[in-house]
Amino acid sequence: MPPPTRLLQPFKVPIKLLMGPGPSNMREGVRAALNAPLLGHLHTEFTDIMDDVKSGLQYLFQTNNSLTFAVSGTGHAGMECALMNLLERDETLLVVQNGIWGLRVADLAKRLDLQVKVLNAEVGKAASLEEFSQAIDDFKPKVAFVCHGESSTGVMHPLDGFGDVCHKNGTLLLVDTVASIGGAPFHADKLGVDCVYAATQKVLNAPPGLSPISFSEMALNKIKQRKTRVPSFYFDALELGNYWGCFDEPRRYHHTGIISLVYALREALVGIAQEGLNECVARHQQNAKILYSALDEVGLKPFVEDPALRLPCLTTIAVPPNIQPKEVIDHLMAQKIEVSGGLGPTFGKVWRIGTFGINSDRDKILEVILALDEAIKSASGLADKKTAARI
Amino acid sequence: MPPPTRLLQPFKVPIKLLMGPGPSNMREGVRAALNAPLLGHLHTEFTDIMDDVKSGLQYLFQTNNSLTFAVSGTGHAGMECALMNLLERDETLLVVQNGIWGLRVADLAKRLDLQVKVLNAEVGKAASLEEFSQAIDDFKPKVAFVCHGESSTGVMHPLDGFGDVCHKNGTLLLVDTVASIGGAPFHADKLGVDCVYAATQKVLNAPPGLSPISFSEMALNKIKQRKTRVPSFYFDALELGNYWGCFDEPRRYHHTGIISLVYALREALVGIAQEGLNECVARHQQNAKILYSALDEVGLKPFVEDPALRLPCLTTIAVPPNIQPKEVIDHLMAQKIEVSGGLGPTFGKVWRIGTFGINSDRDKILEVILALDEAIKSASGLADKKTAARI
Repeated sequence: MPPPTRLLQPFKVPIKLLMGPGPSNMREGVRAALNAPLLGHLHTEFTDIMDDVKSGLQYLFQTNNSLTFAVSGTGHAGMECALMNLLERDETLLVVQNGIWGLRVADLAKRLDLQVKVLNAEVGKAASLEEFSQAIDDFKPKVAFVCHGESSTGVMHPLDGFGDVCHKNGTLLLVDTVASIGGAPFHADKLGVDCVYAATQKVLNAPPGLSPISFSEMALNKIKQRKTRVPSFYFDALELGNYWGCFDEPRRYHHTGIISLVYALREALVGIAQEGLNECVARHQQNAKILYSALDEVGLKPFVEDPALRLPCLTTIAVPPNIQPKEVIDHLMAQKIEVSGGLGPTFGKVWRIGTFGINSDRDKILEVILALDEAIKSASGLADKKTAARI
Repeated sequence: MPPPTRLLQPFKVPIKLLMGPGPSNMREGVRAALNAPLLGHLHTEFTDIMDDVKSGLQYLFQTNNSLTFAVSGTGHAGMECALMNLLERDETLLVVQNGIWGLRVADLAKRLDLQVKVLNAEVGKAASLEEFSQAIDDFKPKVAFVCHGESSTGVMHPLDGFGDVCHKNGTLLLVDTVASIGGAPFHADKLGVDCVYAATQKVLNAPPGLSPISFSEMALNKIKQRKTRVPSFYFDALELGNYWGCFDEPRRYHHTGIISLVYALREALVGIAQEGLNECVARHQQNAKILYSALDEVGLKPFVEDPALRLPCLTTIAVPPNIQPKEVIDHLMAQKIEVSGGLGPTFGKVWRIGTFGINSDRDKILEVILALDEAIKSASGLADKKTAARI
């Protein structure tokens, strides 16, 4: 069997402005870190880097949780790690469902033979504390899931009081911050979050491939008291916690850590630490306002009506009537600018603009909105022509 | 909560010669590929790169299997993907156990509530075709697992005839080639292998983080006929196969591929294609002979006695009497040379030298063996002194 000829053709990667829902563009320091030579996954120099990452993640999540590390996989891997460890077969999970991520978690939970209860929130809106409290009362779940930054709808789900409601009922609060962490206010310990996971390719401006995660003491206790084993070795939080030096015990070989991406994540966390987390979040909020103003100037509207529910680092824009959103996206992509369409419940209804990390930048935002406006006008003209042709 | 001060200290990574069981050093082209700007995980330029990787992996595994791709995780992720897809709860898995990987697979299988049957082979040896055939007859497993390159013992497990025995009994043959692929002869289709997985950080000289995998038509049919869903979304082979363009259908968003590592894997596969797979394997075999000669010259012996069972890209060396293997390893590590100790059944009994890809090189091998010899003499002197002090 001969080598494939196409593989021998040159490798070319164009430079694009990635302002969709992620991945975002890499920070320069992150690119440099990727280039560092490999170390062994248990060499002291590498476990020191893992320690730095761990403390950086505690800062990012604003938590003192000892069991804080990065899963060797993308954000989805963090989701699986959370569910597989926190729950055992036939236990009940409450899913607050207001977009694609609630659906995804519910699907995964069913694969794991969990009992799934759903609290539906309207698309573009959030569940109220009262509704959440009622659902906790009704279902007495072991774990409740909320997606903090719903990247399919652009909603930043409020979490104030959710932890208290959970803990009064012996429920653990699990939160997805893949699209929000670093770009929206989030304080795991203050909010009483028992497990939070994220991803590296959004506000952190690192490549995808690691999923930061953190478990509270209460979550850790539940894991330690499992009657059945975690149905995965790769995602076993106690084994991973040992490898990441989270417990007072020598590290054992578990798996070969994704070394280059751990370097990149460290450098991404340096970026957050140097700017300051609060300052970073405030910048995303300020630039989101610039984005809203720019939208207003070109006659477009955010899809999420309540400004308090808008995710500062990912904005959904209502597609005007008679416009094919994909034509606009293709027009922008031809200029090497990525803006994305809707997903799941927002499919065909919105465009999504990510302003993650270094892409939360006034100039880039204005460039994208101008290009979007032009693309809409072009698509609109095209639509008119097509209609004309049909008449 | 303030940013951690340690994170703000400079990031330094020493250059080491990585001649343990992996990761190996990166190929220069692979490092350059890591540095390429990010693309979106569904952009045409990226899915074209995925197609190149797919055809490169078919060449690497020597298979025409359409369902061939890379799992977004390390070699362990490939193992989990294989087991979770190929088997359903209470089905029987036969594990040929001759080192750590059989143990690991058996552990994972128990977590998944599979029925596990074990065929034990002596450490440093392999199961015979007769023993394997008998075990298949006895247990009638749905899947039989064999580790082709046992990195804990240095054994290359023969597979001739194993596929036929399996298929006569309706059993699928699952093979781990993490430590062997590209460095030892392997032809998935000729051998009748139904599922094979590997890793990127050994012969391929890419960073860890992706696990190449391939499923035969028979394996795919079994997956399609499952009565229960795969207990993972992240590892669902049909979903992954769609994302990797393995079926005649449009790609759907499944997860955010590990873009930078896919670039790196493509470049690693270019290296294999340019050299030629057979030539690459032959080079590993020739250099292994140089390694055996060098060992002989300094009075050391391979742990695997039968030359036909030795893995050409990973050699285990018997630790001489009265030597503490770890002292020797530390001595080498101080010179930035990695040689590893035993693992599992070989713990304390062997050193392991990996000669993977670019590290399968006469000069590097001679450098390592000379340094090893010197370190043993030094440790031996130390041992004598310690004994003297006790007398």
